[in-house]
Amino acid sequence: MSLENPRTHYTSQIDPEKIGDEKVTVCGWVHEVRDLGGICFVVVRDREGKAQITLVKKKIDKEIFDAARKLVRESVVAVTGSAKPEGKAPNGYEIIPEEIVVLNEAESPLPMDTTGKVDAELDTRLDSRFIDLRREKTTAIFKIRHEVLRAVRNFLSDEGFIETSSPKVVATATEGGTSLFPITYFDREAFLNQSPQLFKQILMSGGLDRVFEIGPIFRAEEHDTRRHLNEATSIDIEASFVDHFDVMEILENMIAYVYEQVIENESASLENLGIELEVPKTPFMKVPYSEAIDIVNAKGEEMIEWGGDLGTVAEHTIGEHVFEETGESHYFITDWPTEIKPFYAMPYENDPLISKSFDMMHRTMELSSGAQRVHLHDMLKERIESQGLNPDGFEFYLRAFKYGMPPHSGWGVGCERLVMTMLGVENIRDTVLFPRDRRRLSP
Amino acid sequence: MSLENPRTHYTSQIDPEKIGDEKVTVCGWVHEVRDLGGICFVVVRDREGKAQITLVKKKIDKEIFDAARKLVRESVVAVTGSAKPEGKAPNGYEIIPEEIVVLNEAESPLPMDTTGKVDAELDTRLDSRFIDLRREKTTAIFKIRHEVLRAVRNFLSDEGFIETSSPKVVATATEGGTSLFPITYFDREAFLNQSPQLFKQILMSGGLDRVFEIGPIFRAEEHDTRRHLNEATSIDIEASFVDHFDVMEILENMIAYVYEQVIENESASLENLGIELEVPKTPFMKVPYSEAIDIVNAKGEEMIEWGGDLGTVAEHTIGEHVFEETGESHYFITDWPTEIKPFYAMPYENDPLISKSFDMMHRTMELSSGAQRVHLHDMLKERIESQGLNPDGFEFYLRAFKYGMPPHSGWGVGCERLVMTMLGVENIRDTVLFPRDRRRLSP
Repeated sequence: MSLENPRTHYTSQIDPEKIGDEKVTVCGWVHEVRDLGGICFVVVRDREGKAQITLVKKKIDKEIFDAARKLVRESVVAVTGSAKPEGKAPNGYEIIPEEIVVLNEAESPLPMDTTGKVDAELDTRLDSRFIDLRREKTTAIFKIRHEVLRAVRNFLSDEGFIETSSPKVVATATEGGTSLFPITYFDREAFLNQSPQLFKQILMSGGLDRVFEIGPIFRAEEHDTRRHLNEATSIDIEASFVDHFDVMEILENMIAYVYEQVIENESASLENLGIELEVPKTPFMKVPYSEAIDIVNAKGEEMIEWGGDLGTVAEHTIGEHVFEETGESHYFITDWPTEIKPFYAMPYENDPLISKSFDMMHRTMELSSGAQRVHLHDMLKERIESQGLNPDGFEFYLRAFKYGMPPHSGWGVGCERLVMTMLGVENIRDTVLFPRDRRRLSP
Repeated sequence: MSLENPRTHYTSQIDPEKIGDEKVTVCGWVHEVRDLGGICFVVVRDREGKAQITLVKKKIDKEIFDAARKLVRESVVAVTGSAKPEGKAPNGYEIIPEEIVVLNEAESPLPMDTTGKVDAELDTRLDSRFIDLRREKTTAIFKIRHEVLRAVRNFLSDEGFIETSSPKVVATATEGGTSLFPITYFDREAFLNQSPQLFKQILMSGGLDRVFEIGPIFRAEEHDTRRHLNEATSIDIEASFVDHFDVMEILENMIAYVYEQVIENESASLENLGIELEVPKTPFMKVPYSEAIDIVNAKGEEMIEWGGDLGTVAEHTIGEHVFEETGESHYFITDWPTEIKPFYAMPYENDPLISKSFDMMHRTMELSSGAQRVHLHDMLKERIESQGLNPDGFEFYLRAFKYGMPPHSGWGVGCERLVMTMLGVENIRDTVLFPRDRRRLSP
């Protein structure tokens, strides 16, 4: 370390009892300066918390005292001194400084408030994300997102899944071409991929047996809702020699594990957000589609005929019904009509109008879609055609089904929606550092 | 599990001594059928290895025997039976089948050989990746890639880094606009991001302190070499309150850890590839740029003046020199001329012509670039201008430097090059499941 004044501790790591006379250096932002004349308190904030710097005029070098009083809020400082117990200060200690170095002075006024005392509009916060992140509630969401991804990867690795990556630049649409962003790829037209679906299935033909991918997906939908993004993070798995029931079990166990891990490893972040998290009980309730529409129709707010899709209102009705019955927020809707699911969902052998497909729902919204897939070449080609698509565009995919494709199943979970439903976040944009939507392309 | 004939074991998991009379079911591909008249051997292959199915005509049901003889290579089968010790068979056992179910019959001829006996051209293999992956040498690379990413994430998480994601759809080029793929983003022009650089720096202003991102990057360079891809996976970190020496230490320790973990957890894959891996010794040698050009010039094959970039030949000369001196393949080239490094590299205070930058090299190629960054707004704006770029396009980035940006440093490592140099793979396309280059956009 050649930087002067290297950090010795995060603010959360200092225990004056243990440290004794050892000098400490904390590095962070000037959160607050309270100048009471004879005494001046400076609160320094870092990622892990806050530290109080106490300067008593009579006891301290005049130069340091005067410099401390003039510190500009949100400037970056390194403070070196000794730590003393102080019950009223954050983390139970105060630092008596020997040196305060301003590493980078902040301009003022700030583009937005950082104390959390003033509520800022979402757009203001996203425009100044670098300031918004200095509020502990915002940071807490992204610490938890980190833990969610860590837990997901550990769970899937332990279950024998191999992490893979599929290309984001593709020549063909996954499920038809209506919602794709076109790219100029050298002298050709290409698209941003809307899902790793076709690629993870090809890997099943390659014998990788169990794969997962966590990566960006792109959808050119003109939605402007609090639940949709044009660039999102998808958690995808595909597994061979298993059916839809098997991958539903993997999914519910993964969700429960993720909740457990967040509770275990991010308790401080949950506390900052004021959230008491409970681990969902497994197995999740399974509601067949035909029962799901009965629930909706019995309520009488809308009438859905068999074969119709479930909208937001219907999802809400079913979610409340399940919650009343089980006290749980998570459940599956299974056995969807084949014609409203993508071409790769496998129809039941004894009733081809129904498919081996499922959505995994949270009380408030859809979290995941999955299915046993069609693994038979001719059936798949027919299904592509029956959805009005041209099999020629899928030749690179269909080929993988001709020479030994095993039965397989899989699902995809929206990472942002997982975090959103876990934390009760109102707008999905709050779970993305730099969200992309119809209107937002910066920062 | 509702699939008939569910797998009970991978082929590598069967130990006949332990299993006794328990029935086993293996699921996989018909690797080989050897019909010797009175006896027929079928070798079934799955992700983890192979199993020999032995059918003695006199001892077995005629229907099963006849069906086994007619099995088409690379068809997908489920075989149920009992396992008996057999020293000459793979994994030391054979299965006496009671049932062989063809789950999906393969067409023939196959688009390429799967036995590894016939060498296929790279393009043929990539065109039929789903067949190529059935060769254990190919699968071994992707198992190792999984382990590399797992180790990287665990190492960085343990070092206090938070995993973040930056947008891939952006309005501005990171380092100028020459090598970007344009996207039509609704009614606007946007680009595929060539690096998370600007975003991870903004997060430093946000106080996230230490972040990493592993994700796709896109470069519209017209290279057609064995070391370049147009879509690659970048491992990026950024850390606050540390300098270039600190992040070099993190990098070399991470590389050593990744090698250790691959040796520990992927020994079978290394053996399949015929590789004996050694953990690089840390610290890596540091060769200042000025010494590096002396080494090149002393060899006399080419003359580089101070300020000139190092080409492939020069890198090779320096790499061999370091290898002769230390016996190690990894090293750093440090202290590059400021003007040939990106605008965000911090010049030394006492000699601004030199920057606090480094490349981490493997004997055979560059693996990583990093630096302490410019954290001072006015200096950064000047540096952007001095490289002929317009600061207006960087407003969303520059703003984050005005209100409290800490000193920070970071680097990016090419994931594919890391795997490539570790395994001695000749062509980078062999380390990507579905590579994208100037000519290749499918599968």
